[in-house]
Amino acid sequence: MRVALALVHHPVHDRLGDIVTTAVTNLDVHDIARSCRTYDVERYFVVSPIEAQWRVVERILEHWTEGAGRERVPQRGEALSRVELVPSLAKAKAHAAERFGVEPRLLATGARPAEGTEFCSYQEARDLVARQVPLLLVFGTGHGLAAPALAQCAGSLPPIRPGRYNHLSVRAAVAITLDRLFGDGCVDEVKAPC
Amino acid sequence: MRVALALVHHPVHDRLGDIVTTAVTNLDVHDIARSCRTYDVERYFVVSPIEAQWRVVERILEHWTEGAGRERVPQRGEALSRVELVPSLAKAKAHAAERFGVEPRLLATGARPAEGTEFCSYQEARDLVARQVPLLLVFGTGHGLAAPALAQCAGSLPPIRPGRYNHLSVRAAVAITLDRLFGDGCVDEVKAPC
Repeated sequence: MRVALALVHHPVHDRLGDIVTTAVTNLDVHDIARSCRTYDVERYFVVSPIEAQWRVVERILEHWTEGAGRERVPQRGEALSRVELVPSLAKAKAHAAERFGVEPRLLATGARPAEGTEFCSYQEARDLVARQVPLLLVFGTGHGLAAPALAQCAGSLPPIRPGRYNHLSVRAAVAITLDRLFGDGCVDEVKAPC
Repeated sequence: MRVALALVHHPVHDRLGDIVTTAVTNLDVHDIARSCRTYDVERYFVVSPIEAQWRVVERILEHWTEGAGRERVPQRGEALSRVELVPSLAKAKAHAAERFGVEPRLLATGARPAEGTEFCSYQEARDLVARQVPLLLVFGTGHGLAAPALAQCAGSLPPIRPGRYNHLSVRAAVAITLDRLFGDGCVDEVKAPC
């Protein structure tokens, strides 16, 4: 499936609306890699300009994809082998384009509607996938993607719970988005009454 | 909505199939509380027989529901105020029954089909909610719910990705399950092309 995902640590908003760089967390790397593996998302770009943090992530990845962790829990290595560190969203796009042989369409996500982008419903995004249009799904950490990141996106998916409490963790938001786009949640095969 | 959720730390399986007690983690408390708040799940029972671990969780909860965290990020307190520590799944059921005025139906979840329980499709579970049947959704940590926990469940939901890679984090599994049961993912209102 020609779909990749980017978790952006810069440029994102903080609680006060300023543009900041958030810290890469071990848990975002693990949880989101597992969700990507589950839904056949080929590549998971961890976007951070702070290369000092790359070292930490690289050590985690090495442990699970080559080291002792791989032997103990091979499924984890299978998930983490999709992770790639890049300094910017533009680089994530370029690497995805290289991999897919064509530029991916960038779809932003967020707890609030992304101003200045064209809206794309979940069904429309499913149709794009069915037509094999390569996609790069873009998630923000902190309080969401800032304008310079949104400006690179062709479209944006609707918030998961528009108009309601919108403080899901980014890990939960990724899981739900992937299930809506690639899961069988709406097609329910098990019929026995409960 | 008369729905509660239990995250079980005992009895669950470890990687080798033995029955163990897993450690309560800060992140499971936060992420799952936020997902519960998002989907209007009234109560989130953290099930652990190790009361020494309760102290840690209680301090986290206090910080966010009464302490400095509440002032700084009130939305977090709103989510964490749903958390309740209980020593066993039976206690979670009893507390939910007290709250709802009637015993909830326990629905197990897991990466593999739960043997010995009756299957309940996501659509059937949605119908139960529509009919206001009180539910307690049961999630296992570690490598899933062990037989003594499953024996307390009337039914079980299908695995999220049957027959495929099934190593989602429990945080992701909870988010996806709540979205399938209570979300609007299948009803897609935004129509503009992207």
